[in-house]
Amino acid sequence: MKKIPTILITNDDGVQAQGIRFLIEVMREFGNIVVVAPDSPQSGMGHAITVHTPLRLRRLVNEENYQEYSCNGTPVDCVKLAEQVVLKGKPDLLVSGINHGSNASINIVYSGTMAAVIEGCIDHIPSIGFSMNDFSHHLNFEPARAIIQHIVKQVLENGLKEGICLNVNFPVIEEIKGIKVTRQADATWEEEFDSRTDPRGGSYHWLTGKFVSRDNGNENDINAIAKGFASVVPVKIDLTAYDQIESLKYLEQSIDNQ
Amino acid sequence: MKKIPTILITNDDGVQAQGIRFLIEVMREFGNIVVVAPDSPQSGMGHAITVHTPLRLRRLVNEENYQEYSCNGTPVDCVKLAEQVVLKGKPDLLVSGINHGSNASINIVYSGTMAAVIEGCIDHIPSIGFSMNDFSHHLNFEPARAIIQHIVKQVLENGLKEGICLNVNFPVIEEIKGIKVTRQADATWEEEFDSRTDPRGGSYHWLTGKFVSRDNGNENDINAIAKGFASVVPVKIDLTAYDQIESLKYLEQSIDNQ
Repeated sequence: MKKIPTILITNDDGVQAQGIRFLIEVMREFGNIVVVAPDSPQSGMGHAITVHTPLRLRRLVNEENYQEYSCNGTPVDCVKLAEQVVLKGKPDLLVSGINHGSNASINIVYSGTMAAVIEGCIDHIPSIGFSMNDFSHHLNFEPARAIIQHIVKQVLENGLKEGICLNVNFPVIEEIKGIKVTRQADATWEEEFDSRTDPRGGSYHWLTGKFVSRDNGNENDINAIAKGFASVVPVKIDLTAYDQIESLKYLEQSIDNQ
Repeated sequence: MKKIPTILITNDDGVQAQGIRFLIEVMREFGNIVVVAPDSPQSGMGHAITVHTPLRLRRLVNEENYQEYSCNGTPVDCVKLAEQVVLKGKPDLLVSGINHGSNASINIVYSGTMAAVIEGCIDHIPSIGFSMNDFSHHLNFEPARAIIQHIVKQVLENGLKEGICLNVNFPVIEEIKGIKVTRQADATWEEEFDSRTDPRGGSYHWLTGKFVSRDNGNENDINAIAKGFASVVPVKIDLTAYDQIESLKYLEQSIDNQ
């Protein structure tokens, strides 16, 4: 008999977000699900971990009797606690999301959803992040269902190479045209702080900004989404720029000779 | 007359940490320095940004009259505020650290120090992170001085390729043997939570763990440091695993045919 896979589900919008509730429902057909997700929104937490505060897990009740916990930490904390305290081992698959908002392009480095995926990847767990290109609280995730099912089925069957995880982003349309396996677009946030003065005369700043693509190529995640496709970017945890090592060797010259 | 460069200095251990005070002193000979650093330790904050809380900058006084601010946000917030509110433009160089603790290998993804560097890199600022392989509050940073001077001088003269930043890590020895330009080692933290019971019977967990290398190669940052060299790893902000795109194209097959 084929072993029923254990699937860890987390996110960064918090355990009550619509996106993770939808993902839980989709994933239940694929194995034994275990949910460990933040008790409050953790968007923009990047790969933060909690080292100065004790972490707490709270068991939640659900009608279907799967294991579900909320945690007072970050998405990465959730993955670590799930492995060490809840499962006392590694799940067969980690899925994170569905994030309310795009994690395409450079958003990956700010994303708690993708940080959880990268944490799973570091621990050699096949890991996939799902995000939808809209920050609204209420989204229609239904068009993503068939694509999630397809990708999860393939990854459960074929695995992923060690050190590689997937960043999947959905367009917001009624009928997604298909899947494009592509690369991270070169884009950035152009920040503009909204600076204000408080009633005591002190100034404070709210982070705002607009997302700007600098990418002139065609084959990237932003373009795929704009054309109505789900983008799948294979992401690596080795950040070394191998093609730069040789050209930077000149730095090794004796520092006495400078 | 050659333009005097503007150099932004930040870290994740907080503006009062010994490491940034040493770095400030070393950097003063290279240009006009501007310090924007967290008002409290932000280790392990990864690439977190602050979106639900207003940010505040506090001007600090110093004898040498350079611009110095503390900020209630993360290291990445510090970089954004420095560019948009303090400098109203980009510095010519960003340096971050010296971090109390190694940011070699996979530590880069958890590191606030390196997140600030990556943020600078996203904004096309030549950016360098410096870290020392010891978490103590009091460290002798003096052996790193000549290497910092050498690398900063070279980067100011030659720049760095767009999308590339440097992760520099120092061993803790009296005389550093030189510089090795190398790659990120494959290593991980094996977590062990210290689980306890509070006076009311609730359980809570402290994150602990030990760092374990899985890398059998010789030419990596951990080995360079172990041999007494400063390691320099060129880091990229494009996380795409290009060599995996082709082999994952099978995912694009029509989802109707699954």
